[in-house]
Amino acid sequence: MKKKIMDEIIKAKKIAIIPHISADGDALGSSFGLALGLKKLNKDVEVFLEEEVPTIYKFMPGLELEKEYTFQSSYYDLVIAIDVGDVSRLGERSELLNNGRKTVNIDHHKTNTLFAFYNLVDSGISSVGEMIYTMLVELGVEINKDIATCLYIAISADTGGFRYSNTTSATHKVISEIVSFGVDIADISKKIFDNVSFQKLKLVGKAVDSIELIENGKIAVIVISDKGLNISGLKDEDYDGIVNLGRNIEGVEVSILFREKPNGEIKINLRSNYYVDVSKLANMYMGGGHKRAAGCVVKGELKKMKKQVLEDLISEM
Amino acid sequence: MKKKIMDEIIKAKKIAIIPHISADGDALGSSFGLALGLKKLNKDVEVFLEEEVPTIYKFMPGLELEKEYTFQSSYYDLVIAIDVGDVSRLGERSELLNNGRKTVNIDHHKTNTLFAFYNLVDSGISSVGEMIYTMLVELGVEINKDIATCLYIAISADTGGFRYSNTTSATHKVISEIVSFGVDIADISKKIFDNVSFQKLKLVGKAVDSIELIENGKIAVIVISDKGLNISGLKDEDYDGIVNLGRNIEGVEVSILFREKPNGEIKINLRSNYYVDVSKLANMYMGGGHKRAAGCVVKGELKKMKKQVLEDLISEM
Repeated sequence: MKKKIMDEIIKAKKIAIIPHISADGDALGSSFGLALGLKKLNKDVEVFLEEEVPTIYKFMPGLELEKEYTFQSSYYDLVIAIDVGDVSRLGERSELLNNGRKTVNIDHHKTNTLFAFYNLVDSGISSVGEMIYTMLVELGVEINKDIATCLYIAISADTGGFRYSNTTSATHKVISEIVSFGVDIADISKKIFDNVSFQKLKLVGKAVDSIELIENGKIAVIVISDKGLNISGLKDEDYDGIVNLGRNIEGVEVSILFREKPNGEIKINLRSNYYVDVSKLANMYMGGGHKRAAGCVVKGELKKMKKQVLEDLISEM
Repeated sequence: MKKKIMDEIIKAKKIAIIPHISADGDALGSSFGLALGLKKLNKDVEVFLEEEVPTIYKFMPGLELEKEYTFQSSYYDLVIAIDVGDVSRLGERSELLNNGRKTVNIDHHKTNTLFAFYNLVDSGISSVGEMIYTMLVELGVEINKDIATCLYIAISADTGGFRYSNTTSATHKVISEIVSFGVDIADISKKIFDNVSFQKLKLVGKAVDSIELIENGKIAVIVISDKGLNISGLKDEDYDGIVNLGRNIEGVEVSILFREKPNGEIKINLRSNYYVDVSKLANMYMGGGHKRAAGCVVKGELKKMKKQVLEDLISEM
């Protein structure tokens, strides 16, 4: 399959590249890394995004190859979807699949629906960035610092900086090669992992202030009421990861976040470290998730609901 | 030099290994990784530490090879100092250097004083862990999961999880090999990077609550008064890294932490991101440091000193 895709790339003149909606580090880094690589093969390449590039990735090389997507139907020899599990993840740009003589799907999601003409899906690989690197090398592209930087971002982002369990010996081997082209590891890592907005940091502060440890320090309870916050510019995405603050405390097995929203709903997030299956509790309240990460939404008075949910959690432990 | 050290290791029967005082991830991981490797060569190996193993490293394999240090003078064929820049960094255990038929110094500090009989110092390498891995392989040791885990911890810790500028292509190549022996990357990373004590997290909360941005968000000011804190179990080391909370905020160039201590001293920590040389300000107040990280201690009323120091900082920008 890879060979066929490479043959198509070699034949093609005009190529469109489309990563998934809400493009993350891997989707963006793989797309622009591939685009810059194909440029070196003298292809006419355009990258289409659904949204603006997130602030933390604005320094990524190759962003000048982005073209605004409109419904006018340009024709492409090849339309390549990157890190896209199914067509719905292309949003409005799914239309573009009809404008390619051939379509290609390069991805690593287990659930990939094989929606393109050529599908290269490897769910055993950390990131699409790893797949793109290998392909560019096999295509004979001379990797330069810009391409290497894009692919470093892709792989580093999708492995949580080489800390998630999807990181393999092969990942480090590819990164070893990528780094040799002159990637500024410290600068990139600072930009994609350490940078935080002021409002997010203030939210972290409020969350930490609220943390209580119960059950001999095995459960960390975080309570945030949107009303009382008074942090300007706060976005919904700023709440991502807040529940982990509790999980990371020494000795804690379960962290639970109660977030009281302005509409009266209470959003509950659960994380566990080693042995408690938090999806059971979430299911009791019509929520869902996995053993180590789950959530649900309840209605009612915060104090009362908190008491009830915590009682149910404790009886699960 | 490496060859000579390896010859001595092969000849030796009884070997002592001594990492530096306040042993960190590299010192510990390299020492116990080496010890476990030498065990496989049927050496009689003992590791001596100055302090207890820090909580986050209690899961490290090989800790059973630690022997409590007393002044009784055992005799060793070889005494190997690990990650030790000079003899003062051995604390009380420097005595052991007199009890070795030969002494060896394996380190990566530029400032190493070459205090042993054999000195293998490579300041271009990320960590001693990288050096130990290569040496064990060359000694013909069959690397197993335990040895690999120790060396993974060593290298990962000293490179900030492959994020500092000392991380090279060679580092990733070695890690790629080490990981192939079955290292549990996700579990180790969680334990050494994410785990935080409750009191440290509470300190972070207080620090975040105090952060003010001034000069159009270019300066982050953090103020902590030890008196008002009321966090039980807080250690001096918990203050490490607090100043970085300000530096990581989007748009901030300089972060400054004022910590009012119970004895009336005000400890000032400074960090910059790209262009301000904070050592200049620290020098004005009899402190010191580098361009991007500096500090000083002043006396006086907190409010007044803060105003004065900030004025001086602003005039430096």
